[in-house]
Amino acid sequence: MKQIPIFVIAAIMAVSVIGAMTVSAGGADDESSPIFGLKIPPGYRDWRLISVAHEEGKLNDLRAILGNDVAITASREGLLPFPDGTIIARLAWSYDPLEESAKAFGHLQSYVAGPPKNGVQFMVKDSRKYASTGGWGFAQFNDGKPADEAVHKTCFSCHETVEARDFVFNRYAP
Amino acid sequence: MKQIPIFVIAAIMAVSVIGAMTVSAGGADDESSPIFGLKIPPGYRDWRLISVAHEEGKLNDLRAILGNDVAITASREGLLPFPDGTIIARLAWSYDPLEESAKAFGHLQSYVAGPPKNGVQFMVKDSRKYASTGGWGFAQFNDGKPADEAVHKTCFSCHETVEARDFVFNRYAP
Repeated sequence: MKQIPIFVIAAIMAVSVIGAMTVSAGGADDESSPIFGLKIPPGYRDWRLISVAHEEGKLNDLRAILGNDVAITASREGLLPFPDGTIIARLAWSYDPLEESAKAFGHLQSYVAGPPKNGVQFMVKDSRKYASTGGWGFAQFNDGKPADEAVHKTCFSCHETVEARDFVFNRYAP
Repeated sequence: MKQIPIFVIAAIMAVSVIGAMTVSAGGADDESSPIFGLKIPPGYRDWRLISVAHEEGKLNDLRAILGNDVAITASREGLLPFPDGTIIARLAWSYDPLEESAKAFGHLQSYVAGPPKNGVQFMVKDSRKYASTGGWGFAQFNDGKPADEAVHKTCFSCHETVEARDFVFNRYAP
């Protein structure tokens, strides 16, 4: 039996591992959220700003609400309900004290966005597809992977509080 | 002497007042900041997001840092110093508790952007024109009108604290 040199085996193993990693990384970004079947909308980090917020308590983050063009137009004009095609993105980061500002002001008073935290969330308006949840589909992704079904079951019940504003907490910050 | 009817005088006065208001409103947006001679860059509210922050104390606001295309590219890539043409905008709003979120969570924990507060600020990179202030021109506008010279004298001395980051406090929030 012909012997295969050890470096050939090592090379084959390395290629296999890299191949598996690529598939896995690609797969993560392509995965859909449970219940609503949503994927991460491409380019959302470049969308325009709707508003900003700070969550205290367990969430303890700084967040930005971005919107696609449909969302921005509707938010600016205060259009309710939001039209189909609206996508709202909620990004969040660690709530970090800014040491340099403490130095400049003589006391700590600035908090800035640190590393990403609490995942990225999306609301997608499709009044027919998501009729049973106010016309909105919801999704949360942690490190690019959809959160589990239990998490997605909590979205609508919380957003129901603001049914009068078409289930959207934030208003456009002028 | 021929008499001028009172309604004609009233009409002339009304036209003069409206005319003066128009000139004043148009003038405000066109006014340049003292020391640095900067105007409000058109369309800045549509720029992409660099980061978000919260200021405590007297400022007590929620803020967003937006950037023009040059600023976004440089911030993302961590390019220092920022290239000429960079414009960074600092918007700020009142730090308002969100009652609806208190209802949803059972306790107050969300703070959102309310009405605009603490003016709008800009940093414009022009390494030759603003050589004496680290290559940056500074401007603050309150309700569309430039703040006074005293305010503009404080900009650079504060930003000098972060000379190592080309005088910019905020980092890009991924």
